Amino acid sequence: MVGAASDLNRLGGIPLRLTMRYGFPGPIYPINPRREEIAGLKCYPDVTSLPEAPEFALICTPREDVLPALAQCAERGVRAAAVITSGFAETGAEGVALQKKILELRDTSGMRVLGPNCMGVVHVRSKLMATFTISIRDDDPLIPGAVAIVTQSGAMGACMLTGFQESGSGISSLVSLGNEVDVDFAECVEYFLDDPHTRVICGYLESVRDGERLKQAALRALERDKPIVLLKGGKTEEGARAARSHTAAITTSSDVFDAFAAQYGIQVLESMDAFIEIADFLARSRPIQGNGVGVLSFSGGLGSLAADLSTEAGLALPILAEGTQEKLAGVLPDYAPKDNPVDLVSLMVSKPESQPLKTAGEAVAGDENVDALLFMMGVYHHVGEQIAQEVKALFETSRVPVAFTWMTGPREQIDALRKASVPVFGDYARAIRGLESLISLKNAREAAASRPRLVDTARAEQAKRLMRESIPSPDGFLPAETCAEILDLYGVPRPKETLVETSEEALKTWENYKAPIALKVVSDNLSHKTEAGGVILGLNTPDEVLCAAQKLLALSYDARLLVQEMIEGGLELLVGVSNDPTFGPCVTAGLGGVYVEALDDVARLLPPFEATEAARALSGLRSRVIFDGFRGGPTVQIPLVSDIMVKISELATELEDTVAEMDLNPLIATAEGCIAVDVRIKTNP
Amino acid sequence: MVGAASDLNRLGGIPLRLTMRYGFPGPIYPINPRREEIAGLKCYPDVTSLPEAPEFALICTPREDVLPALAQCAERGVRAAAVITSGFAETGAEGVALQKKILELRDTSGMRVLGPNCMGVVHVRSKLMATFTISIRDDDPLIPGAVAIVTQSGAMGACMLTGFQESGSGISSLVSLGNEVDVDFAECVEYFLDDPHTRVICGYLESVRDGERLKQAALRALERDKPIVLLKGGKTEEGARAARSHTAAITTSSDVFDAFAAQYGIQVLESMDAFIEIADFLARSRPIQGNGVGVLSFSGGLGSLAADLSTEAGLALPILAEGTQEKLAGVLPDYAPKDNPVDLVSLMVSKPESQPLKTAGEAVAGDENVDALLFMMGVYHHVGEQIAQEVKALFETSRVPVAFTWMTGPREQIDALRKASVPVFGDYARAIRGLESLISLKNAREAAASRPRLVDTARAEQAKRLMRESIPSPDGFLPAETCAEILDLYGVPRPKETLVETSEEALKTWENYKAPIALKVVSDNLSHKTEAGGVILGLNTPDEVLCAAQKLLALSYDARLLVQEMIEGGLELLVGVSNDPTFGPCVTAGLGGVYVEALDDVARLLPPFEATEAARALSGLRSRVIFDGFRGGPTVQIPLVSDIMVKISELATELEDTVAEMDLNPLIATAEGCIAVDVRIKTNP
Repeated sequence: MVGAASDLNRLGGIPLRLTMRYGFPGPIYPINPRREEIAGLKCYPDVTSLPEAPEFALICTPREDVLPALAQCAERGVRAAAVITSGFAETGAEGVALQKKILELRDTSGMRVLGPNCMGVVHVRSKLMATFTISIRDDDPLIPGAVAIVTQSGAMGACMLTGFQESGSGISSLVSLGNEVDVDFAECVEYFLDDPHTRVICGYLESVRDGERLKQAALRALERDKPIVLLKGGKTEEGARAARSHTAAITTSSDVFDAFAAQYGIQVLESMDAFIEIADFLARSRPIQGNGVGVLSFSGGLGSLAADLSTEAGLALPILAEGTQEKLAGVLPDYAPKDNPVDLVSLMVSKPESQPLKTAGEAVAGDENVDALLFMMGVYHHVGEQIAQEVKALFETSRVPVAFTWMTGPREQIDALRKASVPVFGDYARAIRGLESLISLKNAREAAASRPRLVDTARAEQAKRLMRESIPSPDGFLPAETCAEILDLYGVPRPKETLVETSEEALKTWENYKAPIALKVVSDNLSHKTEAGGVILGLNTPDEVLCAAQKLLALSYDARLLVQEMIEGGLELLVGVSNDPTFGPCVTAGLGGVYVEALDDVARLLPPFEATEAARALSGLRSRVIFDGFRGGPTVQIPLVSDIMVKISELATELEDTVAEMDLNPLIATAEGCIAVDVRIKTNP
Repeated sequence: MVGAASDLNRLGGIPLRLTMRYGFPGPIYPINPRREEIAGLKCYPDVTSLPEAPEFALICTPREDVLPALAQCAERGVRAAAVITSGFAETGAEGVALQKKILELRDTSGMRVLGPNCMGVVHVRSKLMATFTISIRDDDPLIPGAVAIVTQSGAMGACMLTGFQESGSGISSLVSLGNEVDVDFAECVEYFLDDPHTRVICGYLESVRDGERLKQAALRALERDKPIVLLKGGKTEEGARAARSHTAAITTSSDVFDAFAAQYGIQVLESMDAFIEIADFLARSRPIQGNGVGVLSFSGGLGSLAADLSTEAGLALPILAEGTQEKLAGVLPDYAPKDNPVDLVSLMVSKPESQPLKTAGEAVAGDENVDALLFMMGVYHHVGEQIAQEVKALFETSRVPVAFTWMTGPREQIDALRKASVPVFGDYARAIRGLESLISLKNAREAAASRPRLVDTARAEQAKRLMRESIPSPDGFLPAETCAEILDLYGVPRPKETLVETSEEALKTWENYKAPIALKVVSDNLSHKTEAGGVILGLNTPDEVLCAAQKLLALSYDARLLVQEMIEGGLELLVGVSNDPTFGPCVTAGLGGVYVEALDDVARLLPPFEATEAARALSGLRSRVIFDGFRGGPTVQIPLVSDIMVKISELATELEDTVAEMDLNPLIATAEGCIAVDVRIKTNP
């Protein structure tokens, strides 16, 4: 412990006090040139004079002493160091330069570095308490638990640690990342995936350093069934400003991050108590099989509130089976609703001896259409002990997840239940959010399992060759013919079309088609052809065709004409590919038109993804109702659109970063299928 | 107490036990024909045999005895009775019939009735405990407080009571409404408006019996500065089903209720703990003057989360003044962010003796651009006492509201602060929601104060006469001429237009206009003229005009033609009036077009309202961004649209229920003004 302080209640002293108190089994070496001894331990002037090379060093010296100390550590063969000291990249140019030197030292020595500007690291089972986290209290030793905390904010980590201590689940470890000069968020996730004691990985995240690495870690977390639960800062401009000023990191696009989180089942929560209770619930709950929730409540009003919120969260409240209702009739009076929600009325006042909670809970949880039990109590201090016992039995024996809520209930029994491994929600809204999390995890897990993993290398090679052999426009757009060939390669339907050079050829083509046509100008000088008046629709007389053709040919010296069969009666969609600096390609899809664009009502997915994911993202659009034929409009089959999105996902995956952006605009969708009426592909130089 | 039980822990015994325990000063008469004495009180066989007429009777007999008991009460001159007994309208036809008899008894006798199927009533200061609410505990006497609870769910009321007891604010009273046969929610609100001890009126609401009465009560609540805070059940179909089954009431449209709540500053919350903490905060906080929030946090990460959430809630985070930042520099280290959010870094570990909370808090709260202080701490049990003291001083002396959050903090100090009248939020998300509530109340109060109260009776009379003198179509729509006259009366601009009968007249009119025209069919048989192909736009040659006129005249035997100057280059809006069965007329406004309709992205306001309210509602639309000229589209001035909405509000107010529905569709809005291009008014028979 370099920079150990003799005052065991100060920054440099707390880690020493905690580590000794927890009985860390290895040797501890305080280093402080001004002391002979601290807390009964021999004190050394520097790392060089230690009798052996320590495995791990904690640095809490003043800033100017950090680099020399690290250099000594590296020289002695220390394998890892954590730097608590502040004043690096978070403070400006001088700090940035200093931090760069730490990185250089890591590169030359191979010694791994946590921080700087971090709160250190706690590993409960090995009793390593290399932290000044003030929330570790002498009178309340940390419970070795199943939750690992990885945090880009030390203080938030401290809150979380206390939260999990109070919720009874405890933690396996806490890593405060600070400025992430070396060890980053994704690497810690990877570590805890392999930690047999960790069931849930959670923390505070502001900025993602390596999107691909985090994506792979999230994928493995799904495979291993270890939920990731986050608070995420820096979403809005104001939040990002606050974030930059304290970790000196650039924050990433919140839209793309949200898409990533939704797709990979990462639970991003909006309050600290939801975070604690839901992480705790996920660490202890059974998995869920479907979205049917049985609601059992001590209050009809609460049942109504919960039904509202559950429905809005995409949960269903199936009507309970006749057999279930008969079982309920055995314990509930006639007038108590039994279909779902089930109302316990005032049975815990009038007939507690009938054990109504257990009987009713077992009946509802056992119903064939019920995938989870939402069990909500409030107050009832006078029968608190009985409630706790019945709930504990129910939680332990139920085949489905039990989200138990006890609002303004007795603290003593709630604490006891939590200590006995029964998660207790303090509010119905968080309990419902917890069930939503289970379903989100189930969906993400299933999607990940069926997601295509292999790329078609032959096809990829062919597409890349097509791109190489074509000459893009000065602003990087591929020629229309190349775009068409690439679409054909990936099986995206196009309308019947012919590229011609004169108005006479256009007329002849129309005559051959025997159907209305659209004419579109093709020119290297007009990448935004619609805005330039280069698209004329619905031509169906010789005069119309000739007149339109001449007008378009006059738009540019190199103008040619695309004659296209008109696709009528469908809904105009837009499917695109963009590139995020952190997460790479992102496929978007939504209705065409200015409103949808203004409202940003688009589905976003990171490739590769499969059809179910695309369908779910489309179904979550606010404009979803329009797909079903709103006000007599065209009907669109979501599976058909999802199918196109998957093809574009394959394209984006296989062409990697050679595609800068791409748009199918519009993609016309009808009840029979989708046709890409126009496509633009911009290449990366 | 009719139906008093000798077991003081049962339904019929609890009220007796509580009332005696709390030392109710008046005489208490237990009534039970099978007992001589209960709890030391002489027991009577029925109401008739009582030595005097009680002021108030509590009925907890079996259902079959309720009506006889009430009849005896009425006969003896009892002024009010509460019926706890269940089994009335909530259970089916038989119960409905019984409940109707209670109403008849009320009508003939004048005796007021609370319930049936309720939990009774508590009035803390007068020590009336006519309830079986199990959350009143012998070891924790109710604190006489400032919050009144009015609830359509007894069990939710019990949770609330305990919540306010734990938050230290206590309650003034609790009224459980049950089936609302007589006393209803709005009447209770009225009562507590006049109660000097009540600062906040809150409760659980499912269905509104009398919308106008509740509206008036809410208006007076704003004038008297008594916030109304609610949990609202029955929003979704599932929630409404649950609601119906337990109170037997019909729930009202959730859109219109939400509009009412937003307009009248009623805070509708989505979780029990937000409900408790925000009601408590509103009962104790200073009012807010603007939306500038100074954020002071023990964690940069938390500052970022709070900045995100605050921004999304419409709060602003002004950069703090130089003078403020200098004051902060006196206590905070160089590297700590001081612009807003302000980060206390680890000062409470490294330098608690510098009293950083008080100094920094006073500096931020004193900043000229700061209207409220969002002060967020977490953990810090080891300096809990100091934090509590500094926060208390800050709360008491600050000129602006202080929303103090202590996440996973020490329970003892949090309880103590709450008992000392300092509201403490347990989570940052709720604290931000609390500040949002203060602003919502301020806006509603200001709007209510400047809302027009007088109707123009002369104008109303004239409009009604126009309506009476016209002959509506068979399905109730007013003739086009009448609609036009009514719009003129209320100052809603129309395009230049002329009603003609022949195509020649149409041509002549176009020649006079010297501008493009639209032709619209006018016929009693075509109320949906657009769908019937009865509108042809953009005519500007003699051929076009003649051809279109002939086509339209052929649509119906009674067809006439409206020649209208074309309004071009604006944005198409839709402004309408509908009638809600509970709340009466409701004005809606939004962009035209199928997407906006599908997404239900419309502003809803109950007339009368004023321009600021309309502007705020329009600014809250998701499609708001389009008003500013999205992607080169037309720009719309929100004040000009608000002005039209106010005119329609006046119309709806003055014409009352003679208008069944009305649409300006489209209302074309440009940067210069709005023009109602088409209008339909449907009258009530």
